[in-house]
Amino acid sequence: MRPEGRSAQQVRPITLTRNYTKHAEGAVLVEFGETKVLCTATIEEGVPRFLKGQGQGWITAEYGMLPRSTHTRNPREAAKGKQGGRTLEIQRLIARSLRAAVDLTQLGEFTITLDCDVLQADGGTRTASITGACVALADALNKLVADGKLKQNPMKCMVAAVSVGIVGGEAVCDLEYVEDSAAETDMNVVMTDDGRMIEVQGTAEGEPFTHEELLSLLALARQGIDTIIKAQKAVLGQ
Amino acid sequence: MRPEGRSAQQVRPITLTRNYTKHAEGAVLVEFGETKVLCTATIEEGVPRFLKGQGQGWITAEYGMLPRSTHTRNPREAAKGKQGGRTLEIQRLIARSLRAAVDLTQLGEFTITLDCDVLQADGGTRTASITGACVALADALNKLVADGKLKQNPMKCMVAAVSVGIVGGEAVCDLEYVEDSAAETDMNVVMTDDGRMIEVQGTAEGEPFTHEELLSLLALARQGIDTIIKAQKAVLGQ
Amino acid sequence: MRPEGRSAQQVRPITLTRNYTKHAEGAVLVEFGETKVLCTATIEEGVPRFLKGQGQGWITAEYGMLPRSTHTRNPREAAKGKQGGRTLEIQRLIARSLRAAVDLTQLGEFTITLDCDVLQADGGTRTASITGACVALADALNKLVADGKLKQNPMKCMVAAVSVGIVGGEAVCDLEYVEDSAAETDMNVVMTDDGRMIEVQGTAEGEPFTHEELLSLLALARQGIDTIIKAQKAVLGQ
Amino acid sequence: MRPEGRSAQQVRPITLTRNYTKHAEGAVLVEFGETKVLCTATIEEGVPRFLKGQGQGWITAEYGMLPRSTHTRNPREAAKGKQGGRTLEIQRLIARSLRAAVDLTQLGEFTITLDCDVLQADGGTRTASITGACVALADALNKLVADGKLKQNPMKCMVAAVSVGIVGGEAVCDLEYVEDSAAETDMNVVMTDDGRMIEVQGTAEGEPFTHEELLSLLALARQGIDTIIKAQKAVLGQ
Amino acid sequence: MRPEGRSAQQVRPITLTRNYTKHAEGAVLVEFGETKVLCTATIEEGVPRFLKGQGQGWITAEYGMLPRSTHTRNPREAAKGKQGGRTLEIQRLIARSLRAAVDLTQLGEFTITLDCDVLQADGGTRTASITGACVALADALNKLVADGKLKQNPMKCMVAAVSVGIVGGEAVCDLEYVEDSAAETDMNVVMTDDGRMIEVQGTAEGEPFTHEELLSLLALARQGIDTIIKAQKAVLGQ
Amino acid sequence: MRPEGRSAQQVRPITLTRNYTKHAEGAVLVEFGETKVLCTATIEEGVPRFLKGQGQGWITAEYGMLPRSTHTRNPREAAKGKQGGRTLEIQRLIARSLRAAVDLTQLGEFTITLDCDVLQADGGTRTASITGACVALADALNKLVADGKLKQNPMKCMVAAVSVGIVGGEAVCDLEYVEDSAAETDMNVVMTDDGRMIEVQGTAEGEPFTHEELLSLLALARQGIDTIIKAQKAVLGQ
Repeated sequence: MRPEGRSAQQVRPITLTRNYTKHAEGAVLVEFGETKVLCTATIEEGVPRFLKGQGQGWITAEYGMLPRSTHTRNPREAAKGKQGGRTLEIQRLIARSLRAAVDLTQLGEFTITLDCDVLQADGGTRTASITGACVALADALNKLVADGKLKQNPMKCMVAAVSVGIVGGEAVCDLEYVEDSAAETDMNVVMTDDGRMIEVQGTAEGEPFTHEELLSLLALARQGIDTIIKAQKAVLGQ
Repeated sequence: MRPEGRSAQQVRPITLTRNYTKHAEGAVLVEFGETKVLCTATIEEGVPRFLKGQGQGWITAEYGMLPRSTHTRNPREAAKGKQGGRTLEIQRLIARSLRAAVDLTQLGEFTITLDCDVLQADGGTRTASITGACVALADALNKLVADGKLKQNPMKCMVAAVSVGIVGGEAVCDLEYVEDSAAETDMNVVMTDDGRMIEVQGTAEGEPFTHEELLSLLALARQGIDTIIKAQKAVLGQ
Repeated sequence: MRPEGRSAQQVRPITLTRNYTKHAEGAVLVEFGETKVLCTATIEEGVPRFLKGQGQGWITAEYGMLPRSTHTRNPREAAKGKQGGRTLEIQRLIARSLRAAVDLTQLGEFTITLDCDVLQADGGTRTASITGACVALADALNKLVADGKLKQNPMKCMVAAVSVGIVGGEAVCDLEYVEDSAAETDMNVVMTDDGRMIEVQGTAEGEPFTHEELLSLLALARQGIDTIIKAQKAVLGQ
Repeated sequence: MRPEGRSAQQVRPITLTRNYTKHAEGAVLVEFGETKVLCTATIEEGVPRFLKGQGQGWITAEYGMLPRSTHTRNPREAAKGKQGGRTLEIQRLIARSLRAAVDLTQLGEFTITLDCDVLQADGGTRTASITGACVALADALNKLVADGKLKQNPMKCMVAAVSVGIVGGEAVCDLEYVEDSAAETDMNVVMTDDGRMIEVQGTAEGEPFTHEELLSLLALARQGIDTIIKAQKAVLGQ
Repeated sequence: MRPEGRSAQQVRPITLTRNYTKHAEGAVLVEFGETKVLCTATIEEGVPRFLKGQGQGWITAEYGMLPRSTHTRNPREAAKGKQGGRTLEIQRLIARSLRAAVDLTQLGEFTITLDCDVLQADGGTRTASITGACVALADALNKLVADGKLKQNPMKCMVAAVSVGIVGGEAVCDLEYVEDSAAETDMNVVMTDDGRMIEVQGTAEGEPFTHEELLSLLALARQGIDTIIKAQKAVLGQ
Repeated sequence: MRPEGRSAQQVRPITLTRNYTKHAEGAVLVEFGETKVLCTATIEEGVPRFLKGQGQGWITAEYGMLPRSTHTRNPREAAKGKQGGRTLEIQRLIARSLRAAVDLTQLGEFTITLDCDVLQADGGTRTASITGACVALADALNKLVADGKLKQNPMKCMVAAVSVGIVGGEAVCDLEYVEDSAAETDMNVVMTDDGRMIEVQGTAEGEPFTHEELLSLLALARQGIDTIIKAQKAVLGQ
């Protein structure tokens, strides 16, 4: 039996609140149950050096957890003087995922930075971040078009993510913290709205997993992401 | 004429939301108008080395701004690899201010860390942080007493803060961003609920200021802090 | 047509040279074609703080590239003052993969550090590192048993890894650099010698990939890893 | 009774030695009793990026303590790899204070850096630094005029600073170390030679302070700074 | 009696393997007995800022030890976040030594970086590094000429180095680790092929050394370097 | 002809001022002509971890230049966040040199830190530092004996240093800045008062140097150090 009586394939209640803060070009509070992440999209003119003069744009991401977003306090990375390996890994994943949603050659020489800051963590912060960042990105791109800075919207598709895993021998979708910390296998899947995959990252925390287990996890992920993309489209009025 | 038609002595609407997040021993979202800061209080056993074995407690603070809490994006301090001078200065101020609210010799060997993270900035983030952190601290101390870890509450008084300044030749209270960036003199005042001062930090941004100007600013601060402390007490049910 | 006339499912020539250097408890030069990585295993008494007193051991890993192991020189991470995100991500992957090969509760309070240093890079440095580190780890564990420090060998299985990807529309196994940089989808798979999976990390570099493509990549990976594990067992005389 | 029989309003003997070292454009050893700080002013062409092309100049400051300027040795900040919060706070204060002494729009595109290095500390190092740096700055600006690089001297006024505080219930001026470490309230005041204020920073170390206490401290500060500015003017031959 | 029955003046077997790796413009594995260092030379267009526009080139060096090149594991400098004093000292020495071999005014605006990475340490890593780097540098310069980027080869002479020391009261040449760690005096000498000196660094580890001892050490060094330079010339086919 | 009409073998006027600052156990301002270095010795109980429990002491050193001790301003190392290679090299040299002056087994479990901070640089700062630090060390050791913390003084000899070099084809002693920057060969020699050597570091800045040149430099150094050690002994009243 899962917490809150969820079925194995059920995602937590998904909430996406646009314009949660006022300065950013996109600012979305995403909630996967008790996991809450503030995702902002910032548009800046110019691109990193390796892209200069090619007429295309860039999308990057940064991720952070507020020190007390977790059960016990995590030391502040700014105070420690460096971002940890987990943080870097997650922000690289977010950036790669969102770049897949956009035709960068149609973005013009703009850089969009997606900041995903976890206000409260209860499992699945990276998948919530990708999901929320995609909506913030959509808002930012719409703004570029509305402001006449781009003629057409370079967004190719919606992108969303979910975690799946094997807990107590059963494959379940959208793990919350108590499940995540007990999972034998943990997998994060990022997909587009046509059901193709952008990232699959599966890790055996305990025993190695079989091909059949992998297949059941992928099936759960596809279904969960369908639901999540519906929520994204609803909040964007699509 | 001030923005929103405020009078010179009027503070912005103050909102204090307790239990804004669920893991911390105290978690308060403080809003001074459009300035929004999440203040959490974390209780940990043990004290820094220089206090070991003295039977007293310690209170410390950390401050951060989300990269896009501001009009344009500020680079993330964790990514830069160090906290800037302004950040360090503010978190030292917050910690000193809150230590003044507590009898550390009655705290036992606990350390309380106050994390003040700015979600949206519109002037006065440090004074909002002190104000919100004080409520979060009160919640954390009440919890220590309720859990039987302390016999009596070591809190001596409420502490709150406000910024005052001279803008366009006129002394005004609780400056928002457009005022702050135009102020000739800027002063932050931290006070207890009996009207005594913990910190006074006045800076001439343009012309030096006179003794008389200082006196008017102090008078405005006292009045503004009165209002703010009332809001603190209301939300704590005192 | 692949470079050197390789078929799609063919791995490059795999060479594993034990005792490549003399000080470490395990020291293996692994070559996947022109990719050459020196993997050493160091045994040290004691475990990290979070494991103290639990009677179990720990396995960790570090990864580095010599500055001129690549086509153009990469700045030295020691000189830059920090390890990059890619480096941290890879060394976390190596460590997780090798921990899956060992029953840590049977390791005693020892820490084994696997250092994987790339002497020459031509694609697949992380999968070569995992493969070589597993042999170095086997040597180190055998030494612990031979020295009477452990009664029985805690190694549960061999672990190996390979990269697979879609290049020019075709799924291929063990990509070298020219293929890797042209791949539409890139996937790293880590498996045990009984064909179960420890890690699957697939990334769409260009277009998202389909479920069917994922299945063909997994099939290629399983076959490639079979060959690689045979090479590991041969060099260990199993 | 104060050390050395000083009265409450008396500052320590102030010595300002110009040209204490030979390379800098201004080089002043300032002594407030046993506190000794070497203040140098360096003129460099160009301004920070945020001021480029505006035809104005900039003044900045850095502060440091020699490791054994204090009773017990303080770790060297260069060896620790970062400047502490206190250091950053002080050098920001010095820079702001001295910028108030100069019409930056008349400085031309020069940057003047004031380095304040404490050779021996006995309380009041930041106020001594501001006082000495002002004389070094005057020398540097005179040199710019003498060298024909500026047509007229952009210095608007002399700036000096003193600490005041409440020690054993009594308000006293220019605290030395034994007083400073026992003070209930500590306040640093920076003023121009016409008696107006640039900075007021008052901190309750123990009990909060009252409005009346603040007024007595300000009165003491004004009187002390008068004496100090006389010493500055004397050494500059004004 | 020395290890392996070497005489006092005898250097260890010297091996220089060119093209040890394939990407660098020069790539030499140098072995002094059991000490093994991979030395690569990288040619890049452009020079450091302080040389811009002067039409001359630059040579720099970096040095590192693989963590387990030594008897016990040394923490990885990239993970510690800085290069240690010994590392910086050695790489400065290597760079100075090799700059002496080249007429920088004839190099054109190229920078050559010599990376010396110790795969296995057994004493004398810095002298082996200089010796191997000189051969890698020769290969790189020949390549610049062969590629038509330089009209004539700017190399002025071969440069090699050896350590000498007083061990058990006797002066010996090319110390291996067990000798080095027991030496009373340790001296590194860098010479050109005409017997003149580029660097002499002698250090008393125990008792100070006399003028006569210095002279015997220098005589041993000269003889040892003769042998080493013969090996360099042989491998380069000169 | 040398500056100030000095002869080739003549050192600059040497001044050693004891008790230059008041807090340190030894505090010496050393002047070699216009080069001025403040050398303090700090005694602390305890030794570094690698010496714990062996009943012996330790001597270490740190070196720094005030930013404007030089002709043009050098960036402050504390602000840059790390000590440069030259700094680390010099402080390692100072520490090694002074350890040679003391019988560490007779020092007890004390650590003495020698801080050498350059107030004004005009060539020879490292040799002045060693010379001044030796007097500060003597004062500190005498204090340990006077305070009854050591029964007998563990100092074995005086240690001093001088730079020698070849300038315009002539060997000269104690180079000042204009000579140093024009020297073809530069050598630093550290000796004990019985004429034996602790360190010899010779570097060819331009052309390599011959054995005969090395001998003339050593002869000059011995003579110069004789004079310097006389000055040390005079100021210590020996």
